[in-house]
Amino acid sequence: MDKGQLLYEGKAKRLYQTEQEDVLFVEYKNSATAFNGEKKAEIAGKGILNNRISTIIFERLKENGIDSHFVKRISEHEQLVRKVDIIPIEVVTRNIAAGSLAKRLGVDEGTPLKRTIVEFYYKDDALGDPLINNDHIDILGIATKEEVEKIYELGLQVNNVLKAIFSEIGVLLVDFKLEFGRDTKGEVLLADEISPDTCRLWDAVTNQKLDKDVFRRDLGSLTQSYEIILARLGGN
Amino acid sequence: MDKGQLLYEGKAKRLYQTEQEDVLFVEYKNSATAFNGEKKAEIAGKGILNNRISTIIFERLKENGIDSHFVKRISEHEQLVRKVDIIPIEVVTRNIAAGSLAKRLGVDEGTPLKRTIVEFYYKDDALGDPLINNDHIDILGIATKEEVEKIYELGLQVNNVLKAIFSEIGVLLVDFKLEFGRDTKGEVLLADEISPDTCRLWDAVTNQKLDKDVFRRDLGSLTQSYEIILARLGGN
Ligand SMILES: Nc1ncnc2c1ncn2[C@@H]1O[C@H](COP(=O)(O)OP(=O)(O)O)[C@@H](O)[C@H]1O
Ligand SMILES: Nc1ncnc2c1ncn2[C@@H]1O[C@H](COP(=O)(O)OP(=O)(O)O)[C@@H](O)[C@H]1O
Ligand SMILES: [Mg+2]
Ligand SMILES: [Mg+2]
Repeated sequence: MDKGQLLYEGKAKRLYQTEQEDVLFVEYKNSATAFNGEKKAEIAGKGILNNRISTIIFERLKENGIDSHFVKRISEHEQLVRKVDIIPIEVVTRNIAAGSLAKRLGVDEGTPLKRTIVEFYYKDDALGDPLINNDHIDILGIATKEEVEKIYELGLQVNNVLKAIFSEIGVLLVDFKLEFGRDTKGEVLLADEISPDTCRLWDAVTNQKLDKDVFRRDLGSLTQSYEIILARLGGN
Repeated sequence: MDKGQLLYEGKAKRLYQTEQEDVLFVEYKNSATAFNGEKKAEIAGKGILNNRISTIIFERLKENGIDSHFVKRISEHEQLVRKVDIIPIEVVTRNIAAGSLAKRLGVDEGTPLKRTIVEFYYKDDALGDPLINNDHIDILGIATKEEVEKIYELGLQVNNVLKAIFSEIGVLLVDFKLEFGRDTKGEVLLADEISPDTCRLWDAVTNQKLDKDVFRRDLGSLTQSYEIILARLGGN
């Protein structure tokens, strides 16, 4: 599969066409960004780590009956994925209060939630990815009622699988962000990435943060943290 | 009915006990506040105007089959209401983009919405009354699923009645905020106030703002604007 034209460069990945209309090359970059792009750094090794980790996670989801855009990891920095029309909603699933939820509701970070919750954010950097409700989604016209129900349910289903995977390796799944798109048949499909960039992962014994908060809050070496996750997932 | 002990002083009203357990005295103050209390002023005449306007609106809602806490206006500044346990959710219904919605979704103020929408904000001054979704309400434990459905529907029903009332008098109902509580039987009941403090009201011909935005944005005399609303509603 040849790498074609650069289609889109985002904060963490580059998308390239391939000779197959419905397949894309994804290149995981070494860039780290936080606070809507205000904080930035190049971190050698990050792209390789996230490419490996997201590969393992998408494969494990597949084994557990949850399909995604992931096709195959093809190099250190690259994977092939099915092309989708991204639905501009960041779907955040939470088990434990942290980050913006702790702030929004005035709850201490680390407080387990009474139950798993799902939030929708409008994926729009210029607007700062604001929280939205189902009525906002409706008037924005970005997803149908049926799609919203489906991505809500998928948020919970992915959570069940991921929680089990991480629990086995002594890691708490605090929260994570998913993106979905419509495939060529118009079906909702899990896309983007699932990595320590998009999940909050805490060591279950020490509560040590093993995710992008290490970068956001200057807590030490990001790649060392991501390497712990990769190693525990059985990767190398 | 005698005015008993001061129960609570808010930004716009004071609540007093009466000799009847389930009835309160509400005193409408002359204070105007905006931006979560950051901007403040005393505006002579405001309390009288809002007491009259909210009386007319609660009466008209009643005529249209929508019950509220309102019992009776008993003086220039005061009304009697049924005591409720306030549910700490600000229920905002919107017909036209303005204020925080215009900002959140990047829509120009004044754009009619494809359909009427309802938003829930967590009534908590210390947190800045943040937008919340149904899952947040659930984990906060502030209302049941059935109550949330009921207040959503009431947001739309009150809108239908108010839109008609204001349309008859040449005023656009842009958006408004409601509060609900539980009465002594535990039933959800419309409470608080409905006034130009809690609604966005624009002259249908000139688009002149006739609500608290006059104060928020320094657009002229607040009482002159509220007097226009009162006069058009047939009050004096
Ligand atoms: N399968 C896919 N098809 C098309 N676009 C995708 C797919 N998976 C992810 N994307 C999009 O790729 C873009 C690049 O990713 P990223 O660098 O994380 O961007 P961003 O800066 O928007 O977070 C994002 O807009 C993301 O939504
Ligand atoms: N029927 C009622 N019973 C009990 N409390 C009420 C009732 N109606 C309104 N309230 C509450 O009265 C308080 C005073 O009103 P207000 O001055 O507008 O307060 P705030 O500063 O919280 O907006 C508010 O907390 C409001 O929720
Ligand atoms: Mg991204
Ligand atoms: Mg109030």
